[in-house]
Amino acid sequence: MTDAPSVTIADIEAAREAIAGGVLETPVWPARALERLAGVPIVLKCEQLQRAGSFKIRGALNAVRCLSPEERARGLVAASAGNHAQGVALAAQEAGIAATVVMPEGAPLVKAAATEGYGARVVLHGDSLEEARAHANELAERDGLVYIPPFDSDAVIAGQGTLGLELLEQVPDLSEVLVPAGGGGLLAGVATAIKARRPEVRVVGVQAAAMDGICHSFSDGEVRSVSHAGTLADGVAVVGPSERTFALIRENVDEMVSCGDTAIAQAMVFLLETSKLLVEGAGALGVAALLSGAYRPRGKTVIVLSGGNVDINLLGSIVRHGLVEDGRYRHLTIEIADVPGELALIAGAIARESANLLEVNHDREAPGLPVDVALIHLLMEVNDADHFERVRGALRKEGLGDMSDDPPRMNTAGARRRYDSG
Amino acid sequence: MTDAPSVTIADIEAAREAIAGGVLETPVWPARALERLAGVPIVLKCEQLQRAGSFKIRGALNAVRCLSPEERARGLVAASAGNHAQGVALAAQEAGIAATVVMPEGAPLVKAAATEGYGARVVLHGDSLEEARAHANELAERDGLVYIPPFDSDAVIAGQGTLGLELLEQVPDLSEVLVPAGGGGLLAGVATAIKARRPEVRVVGVQAAAMDGICHSFSDGEVRSVSHAGTLADGVAVVGPSERTFALIRENVDEMVSCGDTAIAQAMVFLLETSKLLVEGAGALGVAALLSGAYRPRGKTVIVLSGGNVDINLLGSIVRHGLVEDGRYRHLTIEIADVPGELALIAGAIARESANLLEVNHDREAPGLPVDVALIHLLMEVNDADHFERVRGALRKEGLGDMSDDPPRMNTAGARRRYDSG
Repeated sequence: MTDAPSVTIADIEAAREAIAGGVLETPVWPARALERLAGVPIVLKCEQLQRAGSFKIRGALNAVRCLSPEERARGLVAASAGNHAQGVALAAQEAGIAATVVMPEGAPLVKAAATEGYGARVVLHGDSLEEARAHANELAERDGLVYIPPFDSDAVIAGQGTLGLELLEQVPDLSEVLVPAGGGGLLAGVATAIKARRPEVRVVGVQAAAMDGICHSFSDGEVRSVSHAGTLADGVAVVGPSERTFALIRENVDEMVSCGDTAIAQAMVFLLETSKLLVEGAGALGVAALLSGAYRPRGKTVIVLSGGNVDINLLGSIVRHGLVEDGRYRHLTIEIADVPGELALIAGAIARESANLLEVNHDREAPGLPVDVALIHLLMEVNDADHFERVRGALRKEGLGDMSDDPPRMNTAGARRRYDSG
Repeated sequence: MTDAPSVTIADIEAAREAIAGGVLETPVWPARALERLAGVPIVLKCEQLQRAGSFKIRGALNAVRCLSPEERARGLVAASAGNHAQGVALAAQEAGIAATVVMPEGAPLVKAAATEGYGARVVLHGDSLEEARAHANELAERDGLVYIPPFDSDAVIAGQGTLGLELLEQVPDLSEVLVPAGGGGLLAGVATAIKARRPEVRVVGVQAAAMDGICHSFSDGEVRSVSHAGTLADGVAVVGPSERTFALIRENVDEMVSCGDTAIAQAMVFLLETSKLLVEGAGALGVAALLSGAYRPRGKTVIVLSGGNVDINLLGSIVRHGLVEDGRYRHLTIEIADVPGELALIAGAIARESANLLEVNHDREAPGLPVDVALIHLLMEVNDADHFERVRGALRKEGLGDMSDDPPRMNTAGARRRYDSG
């Protein structure tokens, strides 16, 4: 027994017409460095260049345009720490409707400022998105505002689905598409659009491993949710899909995969370095799936980069994290006699191997360390593992054996699992 | 008396045909946040998305395709620490020609690796680009290699000019265009193309203030050069134009402006945050000119983002620099009694004002400091100057007067000058 789907291709086509003037047709762009790794043509759908920095404006605009004049007069309320907040704020501003956005108190300053920049009233409330959401519902009740959910809404799903129609036109010969998952609004919409038009195109959802409720739902065949956990991909930090999104996903999605935060950080760095694109953690999931091996494409693949709203304060540490995971930033600790000249010896050996010394820390007070011995902790930039071994060899030649390297690295960059359809 | 120009629109059209299969037509994209500041429509020409990360592939491909079979057999040599290296390497690889690139010994690891990745032999030689160039000329002499100059070549200039033809088609209603300058290869080519087709379009060159030889040349009416100086915009760190590029620039460019490194860092951060685009210092010059007020556009303006090859190791510190210059990262030093609880008082006041504390350093040994007094150096993230003043007010209410703020900020963000045509 199957119920009729709540969102159809006709809804998505209607949404496309309704929001046409309010969204940009974001570019598709080849990713040559990824192609060399994957062995198939790869096209990036650059939705991080969308207005307000993510696909969220599509669903929000469609939801707003579906409102009655009476509802418009009441005003909107939404809860979000990120992209949905900005999408709703901009959509309301475009339509001349008042909007209130509730954000958790710890929300990044820049995101609150951006949301206010689109004319919304921002209310900081609660410690988590759940508490913010509860407060938004209270405000809706108390002040008669219309609540715009982040994904559990047919109008929102149909709006996100317009991205699927767009990419089918832009890349007519695609054979696979990778879409970030989260609560499943974008995935459900895009999958519904693509399967209606081109059922042979493979649709793959990608989720952050830390919160893989949507993956478990997919393999179990019914809605599952997981506990909250931190992830770099804050845009998809959702406990699981809703019944509404899941029904469409079960029907239209071929496979779900997940990626760990290390793979996500590597993907963000990879996109910055090789494609010059700033993509947030959730937006980089598709690239993370390829880089980590969690997904191996077999034909021309479109990867949806869903958003680019990175808290810029964190960018430096994300890049650093990605470079460590790539093995290009390496730590090394060396025990030396605490006499003049030892550091010159170390620095000279490293320079001769053309590695780049980034940090030097002396430690003379480590527990159990003799008074005439010091530890030198180094952070250096190398090309790859071979280069690092050449540097270690050069240090050993100077009589400087290193005590320790980075902690042994398990092959868990992907922390990956594949979820079979149940 | 005017000599016939060395590069004509016919040369640029021929170049466009010659290199068509080897370059991408990079997208143009609206920059809404800049439009709000500038009050006119602004379009970004995203040439940082070009193959090898900058416009340089255009000129290099055209130079390679102009070679005779005999010259191709000899192989190429170039000197560069950056984009020209990658452009020549990729162009040679495409044409199946051997290429040698000489880089100064201090060149970033990633740039050398990228150049090798395109199949070129990389030779590290000398301490400066000048020494690398001298060595490249020696190799050309000794081994019979064909030297490909970074800008002083008609074939290279004509290749760069193809970008001008492209943007005229993409933005037919443009009225002004801002182009990074450097040695003038891109500027000469683009200006020649635009003035031949649309003489009413205003062409403005932008250069880094630290090395404004091309600006002095423009105002003096003859080639001038300046000394080498460090700049964030390493892609335009050139002492001045050549006679060849300058003749075309004097003929076809309407105005030259320059921007300081602080404005360049702010522009890079602005592009990351508002447009999600990673652009290198030289590539951000046009945006820096607008943000700093060095140039005020009067009509629809295209800004050429010329390249995106940022050394990723430096990205974190560039962002930080930009945020400090923006007044969003603020330093504050507070003198406290060295007793328990003082930091809790400070942190509490800052939290109540919703500012974000990024770093706390204690200093108990500053010269002249009484033993029972400590200095606390804070780094915090705020929204703007008003927000910072609210934080200071909250601290004063707790009896915590700050001793010092950031050093007084002169209005030199632009370090800007306008150069009139001589």
